[in-house]
Amino acid sequence: MKPPAADPTLLEKLVLANRILYRYGVVDGFGHVSARHNASAGHFLLSRNMAPALVRRDDIVTFDFDGAALDAEGRRVYLERFIHAEIYRVRPDVQAVVHSHSPSVIPFGVTGQMLRPVFHMSGFLGEGSALFEIRDVAGDTDMLISSSVLGVALATSLGSRSTVLMRGHGSTTVGASLEQAVYRALYAEVNARLQMQAKSLGEVTYLNTQEAAKAAAINDTQLPRVWELWRQEIGPI
Amino acid sequence: MKPPAADPTLLEKLVLANRILYRYGVVDGFGHVSARHNASAGHFLLSRNMAPALVRRDDIVTFDFDGAALDAEGRRVYLERFIHAEIYRVRPDVQAVVHSHSPSVIPFGVTGQMLRPVFHMSGFLGEGSALFEIRDVAGDTDMLISSSVLGVALATSLGSRSTVLMRGHGSTTVGASLEQAVYRALYAEVNARLQMQAKSLGEVTYLNTQEAAKAAAINDTQLPRVWELWRQEIGPI
Amino acid sequence: MKPPAADPTLLEKLVLANRILYRYGVVDGFGHVSARHNASAGHFLLSRNMAPALVRRDDIVTFDFDGAALDAEGRRVYLERFIHAEIYRVRPDVQAVVHSHSPSVIPFGVTGQMLRPVFHMSGFLGEGSALFEIRDVAGDTDMLISSSVLGVALATSLGSRSTVLMRGHGSTTVGASLEQAVYRALYAEVNARLQMQAKSLGEVTYLNTQEAAKAAAINDTQLPRVWELWRQEIGPI
Amino acid sequence: MKPPAADPTLLEKLVLANRILYRYGVVDGFGHVSARHNASAGHFLLSRNMAPALVRRDDIVTFDFDGAALDAEGRRVYLERFIHAEIYRVRPDVQAVVHSHSPSVIPFGVTGQMLRPVFHMSGFLGEGSALFEIRDVAGDTDMLISSSVLGVALATSLGSRSTVLMRGHGSTTVGASLEQAVYRALYAEVNARLQMQAKSLGEVTYLNTQEAAKAAAINDTQLPRVWELWRQEIGPI
Repeated sequence: MKPPAADPTLLEKLVLANRILYRYGVVDGFGHVSARHNASAGHFLLSRNMAPALVRRDDIVTFDFDGAALDAEGRRVYLERFIHAEIYRVRPDVQAVVHSHSPSVIPFGVTGQMLRPVFHMSGFLGEGSALFEIRDVAGDTDMLISSSVLGVALATSLGSRSTVLMRGHGSTTVGASLEQAVYRALYAEVNARLQMQAKSLGEVTYLNTQEAAKAAAINDTQLPRVWELWRQEIGPI
Repeated sequence: MKPPAADPTLLEKLVLANRILYRYGVVDGFGHVSARHNASAGHFLLSRNMAPALVRRDDIVTFDFDGAALDAEGRRVYLERFIHAEIYRVRPDVQAVVHSHSPSVIPFGVTGQMLRPVFHMSGFLGEGSALFEIRDVAGDTDMLISSSVLGVALATSLGSRSTVLMRGHGSTTVGASLEQAVYRALYAEVNARLQMQAKSLGEVTYLNTQEAAKAAAINDTQLPRVWELWRQEIGPI
Repeated sequence: MKPPAADPTLLEKLVLANRILYRYGVVDGFGHVSARHNASAGHFLLSRNMAPALVRRDDIVTFDFDGAALDAEGRRVYLERFIHAEIYRVRPDVQAVVHSHSPSVIPFGVTGQMLRPVFHMSGFLGEGSALFEIRDVAGDTDMLISSSVLGVALATSLGSRSTVLMRGHGSTTVGASLEQAVYRALYAEVNARLQMQAKSLGEVTYLNTQEAAKAAAINDTQLPRVWELWRQEIGPI
Repeated sequence: MKPPAADPTLLEKLVLANRILYRYGVVDGFGHVSARHNASAGHFLLSRNMAPALVRRDDIVTFDFDGAALDAEGRRVYLERFIHAEIYRVRPDVQAVVHSHSPSVIPFGVTGQMLRPVFHMSGFLGEGSALFEIRDVAGDTDMLISSSVLGVALATSLGSRSTVLMRGHGSTTVGASLEQAVYRALYAEVNARLQMQAKSLGEVTYLNTQEAAKAAAINDTQLPRVWELWRQEIGPI
């Protein structure tokens, strides 16, 4: 089945998102970022199975919410496309999803600690991060979200939050736009590093719920500033 | 109103300051640096609202101490220009101001720890850093210094010191020249990292007040050495 | 004695392996990576004595399992070629060996801590790392594996595991291919850093044996993805 | 007075040493490296007052052991040339000296902890680092070694060791050649970072005196390998 054509600007942003996340160390050879299809309900856009740093427009594949590729044409797809699919299914507010093994975030997931907003840049963590323990739903696995069933379980853990930690694996961050999802994934990593350091110094005063909500709202108005920087740093794609 | 023309050398230094602070990780897509206007009392120079790494001469706007832009010509300005404005108003010794989310400094602000000079490069921290708690003056906010009232409160916290930590936000550092302000912002970051590490090793002998004052004075005579390095690293602007 | 010609593709991969390990900080001016000879039982391929970052095809020398070079033609060889030789002798499953002073791994060896898999990327650590204490077999030495006797002792410590820590020295990681050995050496470093950080945060839930084995198996199917990234990052050799 | 001409190869190495130390973060805009004059007893070679990264052959000045420049021709010289002068005066085995604010080393000096060899690469630390407390000899100062008297005191603290920590300032490392001094300064930094991390994990088994001495001896035979790497990384000077 031929998928509807996606907005070229969205495709370009998705390629940029892959490159930015690599440049800033949120993803390495692994991890992926997707965007909800702009012109077709029930579909999303995600690269074929490859390193994010190398993704080009032609590598973007269209998937439905069961994780089926519409136009893979024999190319391998990510084992964990179900992370994206099941979140899009239940979170109509979500337009973009980043799954990564962002390093500073890992220690929180494996110790059951919650990410909390150390500074205004991470106001989106105001409700704290959610925690997904795959053992609770599937016993001893390969840790991957490789089925719709596991995707549903992860999306349930995420709930209405921005970020879910996946014990022994990584994390997933969502946004109302690609810009916001990339911003959140990057500052979740920054916040995690700061939170570890702050905890080693003494008792931490986190942003409270009101501060976090207000900071998140005002920071969203500044997204074009940082996206322009990232776009210029990546250069032509 | 047409502002008086600023010294082209000062404008060039201000552009360099933006680039240097980015290159050394003091600012990222956010943060800003300003200089007091050389030819017009009551005015200062600050980029329009954009990522510091991308600032060019034409992006510099003139502001008065109420935070009003004289020549923005419709361009967006930084929400937090009041940080700069209110410090210039009450600190005639200050010729340049850096506001950043310099990462290693954040953990000190959120745990109420004071930056103290670990080594002679940070003699300017001899009196310790000040601490600004926005909750004390404005309750639950978006954490930003987005008004003259908040700017006055921050400047009051800063007092006669070189650096004020802003809980849950970042820090602000001042200098008697752009070179000195950039130097201080960069070595506040270095000092913070060293101070965290030293505290994990044992009891720290900081520079005492006399040592700090003498070290700061002699180091100021070496500013041209390091500014020349930074200028060459940035290249033509 | 003229050694049999090795597969040019294998030689190219070995040069790439040297460069990749340097680019990612697993080796610095020291450390080495080898591959079992594809066409001659009892032989392996390893650079002459030089910095890994500079290795080219012509620098690859063939060795036998006693550490004798077949085609060094007067060029200096690594003092520690016996690490590779004795592991190939007793581990027929091993096709490639990385010896390094990978920084984050060192603290584990010198404190007798075991590397354990913090996340699925390091499922190959499911049995934990082995620990080699050279004092136990040879008293006070220069710490180097500079003889067959010491090589045998190290290979014995390694046993059937993927990684052996060498107290006061570094570590050695093995794989069923060059791609796998490089992957493991790199993610042993990543895992070590994460494990240190996680331990500072609280009690760590490691992958259990089943999870680790399953994760290792599925990750091996993704090696071409990351190798392609690394190959493109290195560029022409 | 016209100084005797120094060996051009030595001058080239000294320029390289400046660049290498900057590239690897041992020095930043500050710090300096010198070499004993090859053809004139009582003299040493050191750059004029400038950032190490920018040093070229023409910037090298000849000094006597009282810190007097023979050919500065009006150019500013380093305030702390007395570090070098007084060490050369009392340590005939020393051919090169590095003074830096190498970051990971600072926390040891300010907490009175001794650098000890975590791994064989830092066997030169087998006797541990010395510690210089300027307050003990001169009270409250600007922390700089800005006179022969202070240079003598520092050289006395150093004694026969390879490295002296300077509380609240930095450290100084010596070698029997430029290659060795650069190697030691760089691996003192690496060792310091590893030592901090290891101490956070548990009780550390350091190299004992015998191991350290043997490791240092064998590693010295490998200096050309790593110097060749560094030389190629710097490129033409």
